[in-house]
Amino acid sequence: MSTQGDSIHHQGPAFLSWRKLHLSKAKLKAASNTSALLAGFAMVAVVEIQLNNNNSDSEQLPKPLLFLFAICTTMLVAVHMLALLISTCILPNMEAISNLHILSLVNESPHEKMHMYIELAWGCSTVLGILLFMVEVAILCWIQFYSVLKEAAYVATAILVPFVILFIWFAIIFYRNLVAHTYETRKCGIQELEELKHV
Amino acid sequence: MSTQGDSIHHQGPAFLSWRKLHLSKAKLKAASNTSALLAGFAMVAVVEIQLNNNNSDSEQLPKPLLFLFAICTTMLVAVHMLALLISTCILPNMEAISNLHILSLVNESPHEKMHMYIELAWGCSTVLGILLFMVEVAILCWIQFYSVLKEAAYVATAILVPFVILFIWFAIIFYRNLVAHTYETRKCGIQELEELKHV
Amino acid sequence: MSTQGDSIHHQGPAFLSWRKLHLSKAKLKAASNTSALLAGFAMVAVVEIQLNNNNSDSEQLPKPLLFLFAICTTMLVAVHMLALLISTCILPNMEAISNLHILSLVNESPHEKMHMYIELAWGCSTVLGILLFMVEVAILCWIQFYSVLKEAAYVATAILVPFVILFIWFAIIFYRNLVAHTYETRKCGIQELEELKHV
Amino acid sequence: MSTQGDSIHHQGPAFLSWRKLHLSKAKLKAASNTSALLAGFAMVAVVEIQLNNNNSDSEQLPKPLLFLFAICTTMLVAVHMLALLISTCILPNMEAISNLHILSLVNESPHEKMHMYIELAWGCSTVLGILLFMVEVAILCWIQFYSVLKEAAYVATAILVPFVILFIWFAIIFYRNLVAHTYETRKCGIQELEELKHV
Amino acid sequence: MSTQGDSIHHQGPAFLSWRKLHLSKAKLKAASNTSALLAGFAMVAVVEIQLNNNNSDSEQLPKPLLFLFAICTTMLVAVHMLALLISTCILPNMEAISNLHILSLVNESPHEKMHMYIELAWGCSTVLGILLFMVEVAILCWIQFYSVLKEAAYVATAILVPFVILFIWFAIIFYRNLVAHTYETRKCGIQELEELKHV
Amino acid sequence: MSTQGDSIHHQGPAFLSWRKLHLSKAKLKAASNTSALLAGFAMVAVVEIQLNNNNSDSEQLPKPLLFLFAICTTMLVAVHMLALLISTCILPNMEAISNLHILSLVNESPHEKMHMYIELAWGCSTVLGILLFMVEVAILCWIQFYSVLKEAAYVATAILVPFVILFIWFAIIFYRNLVAHTYETRKCGIQELEELKHV
Repeated sequence: MSTQGDSIHHQGPAFLSWRKLHLSKAKLKAASNTSALLAGFAMVAVVEIQLNNNNSDSEQLPKPLLFLFAICTTMLVAVHMLALLISTCILPNMEAISNLHILSLVNESPHEKMHMYIELAWGCSTVLGILLFMVEVAILCWIQFYSVLKEAAYVATAILVPFVILFIWFAIIFYRNLVAHTYETRKCGIQELEELKHV
Repeated sequence: MSTQGDSIHHQGPAFLSWRKLHLSKAKLKAASNTSALLAGFAMVAVVEIQLNNNNSDSEQLPKPLLFLFAICTTMLVAVHMLALLISTCILPNMEAISNLHILSLVNESPHEKMHMYIELAWGCSTVLGILLFMVEVAILCWIQFYSVLKEAAYVATAILVPFVILFIWFAIIFYRNLVAHTYETRKCGIQELEELKHV
Repeated sequence: MSTQGDSIHHQGPAFLSWRKLHLSKAKLKAASNTSALLAGFAMVAVVEIQLNNNNSDSEQLPKPLLFLFAICTTMLVAVHMLALLISTCILPNMEAISNLHILSLVNESPHEKMHMYIELAWGCSTVLGILLFMVEVAILCWIQFYSVLKEAAYVATAILVPFVILFIWFAIIFYRNLVAHTYETRKCGIQELEELKHV
Repeated sequence: MSTQGDSIHHQGPAFLSWRKLHLSKAKLKAASNTSALLAGFAMVAVVEIQLNNNNSDSEQLPKPLLFLFAICTTMLVAVHMLALLISTCILPNMEAISNLHILSLVNESPHEKMHMYIELAWGCSTVLGILLFMVEVAILCWIQFYSVLKEAAYVATAILVPFVILFIWFAIIFYRNLVAHTYETRKCGIQELEELKHV
Repeated sequence: MSTQGDSIHHQGPAFLSWRKLHLSKAKLKAASNTSALLAGFAMVAVVEIQLNNNNSDSEQLPKPLLFLFAICTTMLVAVHMLALLISTCILPNMEAISNLHILSLVNESPHEKMHMYIELAWGCSTVLGILLFMVEVAILCWIQFYSVLKEAAYVATAILVPFVILFIWFAIIFYRNLVAHTYETRKCGIQELEELKHV
Repeated sequence: MSTQGDSIHHQGPAFLSWRKLHLSKAKLKAASNTSALLAGFAMVAVVEIQLNNNNSDSEQLPKPLLFLFAICTTMLVAVHMLALLISTCILPNMEAISNLHILSLVNESPHEKMHMYIELAWGCSTVLGILLFMVEVAILCWIQFYSVLKEAAYVATAILVPFVILFIWFAIIFYRNLVAHTYETRKCGIQELEELKHV
């Protein structure tokens, strides 16, 4: 492990790019495993749920609930498949570079050129994907409880509200920190380049 | 493996932060795998459980049990999704730093700035998530045994009580050790800084 | 980690082949895990879906939907099995070479000789496989919602359309970048060989 | 790999503690993966088993069998959740220490302070958890075979008996070896300390 | 990473055997994970499929289809279990040798002595196992679609045909490359031994 | 990687024990993952199979088939749980030793003292466990096909017979090789000790 002595060397533009490569790689890896599993569970839920109650005496499920279920399931799967596609396509190109441990090859990695697309798509799909899974379970509770005890479904929804707020609040905090961090890093990079110019 | 000779060097503030980085990373990794699996099993339970008995002669499930089932399932999934969100968002930033093995970069890791949020949210979600999974199975036993043999459900609940107490007792012991450990480490850090000042 | 000084050495034809080996290996690894899981979930969906509604009063599923379901499921499984076959057959040959860390053995790896087949088959099967999984869920929604609420199925399909466009757009961007990258690398290689000739 | 020459150095109290750290870490890791999977399968069994036969002509399940099923399922899940809780809480603290490869930090790991609780809780939960899973399957056989062919359930139980005896016998042998091993190591440590005192 | 200078050293008979060890190890590892998962999904399919339609008005499934399903399922599971058995029995012996990184121990590994059995059994079981999984899904489609819409089953089969041809074509190409590669390597080895004799 | 020069050093009794440690470790690791998964699938099969056909016109399942199913399922789970227990109990003790890479500690590993128990129990449980899983699927085919088409079940059994013979033949070959190998190694060790005595 190197100490603080060579910290100036570790601020060069190639090294900054190398660090971004490691960050993008770690992000995509974290996303791919979870996505395949959660999308698979969502598919099983669609196949096994019973929407048309055969009991003639029980109430029919209301239309808005069915609309919500259709929308939520489709988006949940689509969003996780998008995260999986990005992981499967971009990750190998990054890993091939990072496994060689050669700093000068960092420019050939696609993580800088495709940065905007990846960051946006990945951020959306991960945060949205987890949020949608939570909402999906709430909708499944509604479908199961509707003809038995509507009040239980209301309680379940009431419990979910603070969690959704917590999710959005956490996402905002995290996004701000990320932006602030990126800004600082960029400023450092520019400053350094300025200093190099003036010398 | 370095020996005791350079132990003084390993007490510097940068190194303490480096160790905290490794601790937070290990915590988040341990949480993410379990959370996705347990939340998925909970979703399958919601989809496949049959709440409305078609047999007209069997008793209807009591309302408090249904309320409890709705509350427990929603919280179980919400709590595990929260742990998963935190893992997916924060972990890549830490891994990108720790994989480079450069001590001076430790300040750029988000584990210090977001310490309070992470520790609280993670601790709650892991301990709570495992406790809720245990309670969920007890409720599922109640739903399955209610119209068959109520006494079996009472026995199952009676068995669960000492385990829940053991859980809470373990969580308290663990929390105390953690607080004591943090206090000691902080005191050491401050003491060292004091000594550096006076020299 | 080596620095920019020896970057010229890292452009030799053997090293370029070594890098291609790492890229192919990473691609195949990323594909194999996801493929087995998604194909398994697709099989479970086929086994557990109920196509013939026993309720005499509900509408029968339309023929085009059933055709679409049969086509999509068969292709989904076939495409993932193809990706799995390629991974299982080619990957061991590459890993045996890359684990020895000897540059001169790179010519004995099959990744150059079978490049065209692998790249085409893998690219198709991964992108197509993920796209088909998304379409499969949409078809399952149609089957489940058909006799309950047709409008919900239309909404689910409408949500899926922008995602499919996004998928195809992303695949095109990614393919272009890949082609451009390959072209540049090849040009570099030829240029270098030319220079070596003239010296 | 170091040879026998420096074996005396490897008997110091810090090194003994370091070895215990590695042992505890390996134990907890082995437990956590299995626990989440087996507990999940147990939950699926509770949800999908059908306890009340609708066929009026078939016999009702006897009460002791239902009591046994309720007790076994609850304990199985509770015991695995306890193992999972311990793994998730203690493991990160150990990993953070062991990943730094610094011998002098071994005292800050919680594996010595919480040794008694961990060893007891973990040993019970792993051995008990696997034993209970085996008994659970036997009970499930009883429930499924009761109204069809009682003799088959008796045979299944008869087969299980030697395995349970083998389990308990193995656990006793293993426990004795462990105790003997711990005693020897401790005696060595004390002896060494004595020798250091007299010099 | 060693360069071309010592390439002659890397052609010795011990080293060739060392490389074969790595190749066999990688093959067996790739097979074992997939086999357990696919065989498990096949078992679930057998348990949950409903062969006897209770609706008296729907057609009974034809005998050849049922024969095909019985044959395909049994072979699918048998072939994957064979691959799993070979992996579980042979792999540990190889890993124990290759983890020590000592070239002279390569003769004690069983991969040379049992080469014929392993290569044949593994090759058959992997390629056949993946092909059979694909056919199994087609048969499941036939069973599900038979009483609903026979044309959809015909279309599904028609789609499968080019994939099966692609599979067999790929297997032949791959087998030829393997044979060619083995022949070249063996020729090199013999040539080298000849040269050593004449010196 | 060390070459042939120091091969004499690698035949010492401590090193032989070190190699046995690696072999036992690799065996136990290979067993534990497969066992938990296959036992879980077997449990799902017991829960979801329907033994009592409600259709009054279909034949009742014969008693020997039910006996066989009860025996096979119980043994399958018991055998895999035994393999899991051994893995979970012994593996951590070995890993703690092997991760330190200190040759002189090899005597403290339990793999020599408990060799007979482990080898016998593990060998039986792995080979038997995989064989029983194959037989279990054949029995499930019988249960599903009995009231539909008995001939299909006969064909499935006929296909299984050569595979079972292949299994037993492979197990015998493998066992002989193992015994031969152990004998050779032991003879070498004794010879070496003799030579050391005479010098």
